[in-house]
Amino acid sequence: MRNYVIGVDIGGTKIASGIISRRGKLVKKVVLPTLAQEGFAVSIEQVYSSIVELLKTSGIKKREIEGIGVCAPGPLDPRRGIVHNPPNLKGWREVPLEKLVSKHFKIKTRIENDANAAGMAEVIWGAAKGYKEVFYVTVSTGIGTAVIVDGKIYHGKNGMAGEGGHVTIDYNAQNAVCGCGRIGCIEALASGPGTVRRLRNRLESSSRPKTRIPDLVGGDLSKLNMETIDQAASNGDEVAIEAIKEEGRLLGIWLGGMINLLDPEIIVIGGGVSLIGRPLFDEIRKYACQSTINIMARCTPIVPAKLKKDVGIYGAASVFMS
Amino acid sequence: MRNYVIGVDIGGTKIASGIISRRGKLVKKVVLPTLAQEGFAVSIEQVYSSIVELLKTSGIKKREIEGIGVCAPGPLDPRRGIVHNPPNLKGWREVPLEKLVSKHFKIKTRIENDANAAGMAEVIWGAAKGYKEVFYVTVSTGIGTAVIVDGKIYHGKNGMAGEGGHVTIDYNAQNAVCGCGRIGCIEALASGPGTVRRLRNRLESSSRPKTRIPDLVGGDLSKLNMETIDQAASNGDEVAIEAIKEEGRLLGIWLGGMINLLDPEIIVIGGGVSLIGRPLFDEIRKYACQSTINIMARCTPIVPAKLKKDVGIYGAASVFMS
Repeated sequence: MRNYVIGVDIGGTKIASGIISRRGKLVKKVVLPTLAQEGFAVSIEQVYSSIVELLKTSGIKKREIEGIGVCAPGPLDPRRGIVHNPPNLKGWREVPLEKLVSKHFKIKTRIENDANAAGMAEVIWGAAKGYKEVFYVTVSTGIGTAVIVDGKIYHGKNGMAGEGGHVTIDYNAQNAVCGCGRIGCIEALASGPGTVRRLRNRLESSSRPKTRIPDLVGGDLSKLNMETIDQAASNGDEVAIEAIKEEGRLLGIWLGGMINLLDPEIIVIGGGVSLIGRPLFDEIRKYACQSTINIMARCTPIVPAKLKKDVGIYGAASVFMS
Repeated sequence: MRNYVIGVDIGGTKIASGIISRRGKLVKKVVLPTLAQEGFAVSIEQVYSSIVELLKTSGIKKREIEGIGVCAPGPLDPRRGIVHNPPNLKGWREVPLEKLVSKHFKIKTRIENDANAAGMAEVIWGAAKGYKEVFYVTVSTGIGTAVIVDGKIYHGKNGMAGEGGHVTIDYNAQNAVCGCGRIGCIEALASGPGTVRRLRNRLESSSRPKTRIPDLVGGDLSKLNMETIDQAASNGDEVAIEAIKEEGRLLGIWLGGMINLLDPEIIVIGGGVSLIGRPLFDEIRKYACQSTINIMARCTPIVPAKLKKDVGIYGAASVFMS
């Protein structure tokens, strides 16, 4: 293997890319706006520019690069190298991303779904290092997951496995319609926006909730977000603590089912919401154990992800590391 | 490989065992009562007797036997060869079944969970022949599943993966407490007893249901079972048809989530309830497609199992065939 891998993480608002050494050091990083709203032609140019910029500013030669790993929001097919139609990348339809990038730079390229990539990054460099059967979860605006089997991402038939955020735990919950259009997906219930929505409904329907949360957003509950809730909870606000506990309970119930199905060696939880830490993880662990028939599940570690802000770049690069 | 494999299927009421040729022919079969209520010492003797009987009546020599595959209700650990504490086999606790049988007969032995074994039998001889990524489901008194990855059973960390029947789709449904003690597991909702319970509640709470089902059980709704419902539905009874459709809808919603997570090549559904056939499968297929974000899922076949009454024996034998 050559000395470096380029990782490009295409998000809805920004493209974060970097050069990672064989040993896992991020030696150079570039962030550009995706400009997704300006259409496909513009945003693919932003991808190219990121890579050009990385090569130029790092002084690393093309021949030192093992490959370019690109991760993007799903649905995509990593085996055929095609991005189908991600809701967060308007105008991207059946884009042969692997071929486009590899032709443009004459460097081997592979693509991967963002949650899968982040999961592999945790296996190679992070909290799941040394484990082979891993269930990775990222909780932020949505809930993404990766199923890692024998140290490799499990892709399934069409490369679309690992969408565990769209497993319903409450198929009848008309008040929990998911972004995917279905009902009661854990993403609808326990993502950041799901938790915010539930708390907001509670505050709006209660005449005198015992909480200072409304003050924290200047009385405008549309400004409520997970950071506010986390901050209020840290200050001992009971309503905020309860909201975080409820989120943990829902994630735990769902993970209990995932343990029943997959019996992983370890569960790693990343994403912005996971930064809440202990108060959230304690509830997750408690309910996951209660919600599984797996008599060994008490020994299944449920741990926070290790890689934080650059996990996307590491994830993208991971496709050439495993 | 030698010419024959012995398969022993230990159930709560009977032990079905057989000798299967390398080509998949069941050349001899023996059925004995498990006598589970008489305790472990008695039922393990029944296991031994089954095998002795098979060898004696078939005239096949020990040296022609590749191995003895034994399947039993979970939880069990196929890698360590230990049966933990199956609710259906009273008095079986941490039984080193693999070692006991192999020592007794001086023939290599392996054990497997019954649903996993049935799933592998479908892969080797049945509806999933030629497929490598398979989700197998058996719907009868309970709901068991098997996750088959790259043509092999996925066991997870403790050998306890594949318990997809205990994934909740309705964690709040206080009227759907599962045998496992948790709430809203698909087993509680859509197994035979789950469907019977729902229909019975409906009949008991309705003053004049338009159905002849009560007549079919002599007015005693405690005698209601899936066969009665199937029979009534075949005769055009709308209430019975509705009960089957509801079961299909619930299974479909659950399978949509499983497709999101696992993106299998094929889903095979066996077990007694699957014999209902078309009216059930049509609903399952409809709702599975509606309940997944996988844009390729329309192409995922959902088919009935091929192996019927001897699936347990074939499943047990399959551990020496793959």
